[in-house]
Amino acid sequence: MQRKSFHGNICPVARSLDSIGEWWSLLIVRDAMVGVRRFNDFQRRLGLARNVLSARLKKLVANGILEQVPATDGTSYQEYVLTEKGNALLPTLIALRQWGEQYLFSEAEPRNTLVDKKHKKPLRKMQVYNADGETCTTSDLTLIVGSRQEEVEEKSA
Amino acid sequence: MQRKSFHGNICPVARSLDSIGEWWSLLIVRDAMVGVRRFNDFQRRLGLARNVLSARLKKLVANGILEQVPATDGTSYQEYVLTEKGNALLPTLIALRQWGEQYLFSEAEPRNTLVDKKHKKPLRKMQVYNADGETCTTSDLTLIVGSRQEEVEEKSA
Repeated sequence: MQRKSFHGNICPVARSLDSIGEWWSLLIVRDAMVGVRRFNDFQRRLGLARNVLSARLKKLVANGILEQVPATDGTSYQEYVLTEKGNALLPTLIALRQWGEQYLFSEAEPRNTLVDKKHKKPLRKMQVYNADGETCTTSDLTLIVGSRQEEVEEKSA
Repeated sequence: MQRKSFHGNICPVARSLDSIGEWWSLLIVRDAMVGVRRFNDFQRRLGLARNVLSARLKKLVANGILEQVPATDGTSYQEYVLTEKGNALLPTLIALRQWGEQYLFSEAEPRNTLVDKKHKKPLRKMQVYNADGETCTTSDLTLIVGSRQEEVEEKSA
């Protein structure tokens, strides 16, 4: 299946996905988060083939991330809205967006920006904190597999 | 291309990807974050075909997320380590992991847990904050496209 490249896309999320791999469905979630509800609007924004978009939407509904509701304008259209589970992807999307903003755009390059409605200011940088509220980097973390601490080679600094 | 399903996988990140779409390369980054460095170790953990893994690693190196370094044991092997850009994917991975933990596992189900080395306690829940440090949900945010605020339908609550 051919995939449109997001290399030069204005959206940091889209560009992050292009840089790492592909994850189209997250872009559907992203669009739903800014209020896109209709098949044709998703289709126009994402430039996906209708059958592909249809399959992705179906999977998101099946997995409880989106749900179908009757159109708000009283027509017979169905619209797609995020469930609570779908909305809970916000931190993932914001973290991914900020990564893209930091690493995949040059300083002066135009980009989509997500701001809070009240202040119209960009969001605070997403950080990982331990239970005591101290910021963590990769080297501060360790993986527990089931109940067993995993043996992995120590990283050489 | 056939893809192994992560539906019942022990790792919340893997299961999140299965639920949303596919994004294999993020699993390579995830493994690199816990110290996996060698091709064969990635291969064994991910169960990817060697040619597919090879292509994914190559892309991650090309995109500056991983870099190749000589093996630490003095052999002629090459190892893969995360760059600063690669390590900066940590908030994305943690957010995705926590989402999977919350929505894709039952209470008693065994799972991989990422803890901080110092306290051996799970991390604080990732939250989105505005510039003033107030927590934000999807409905608090608006998208600025370039310099123009995007007109999207208002969500009905």
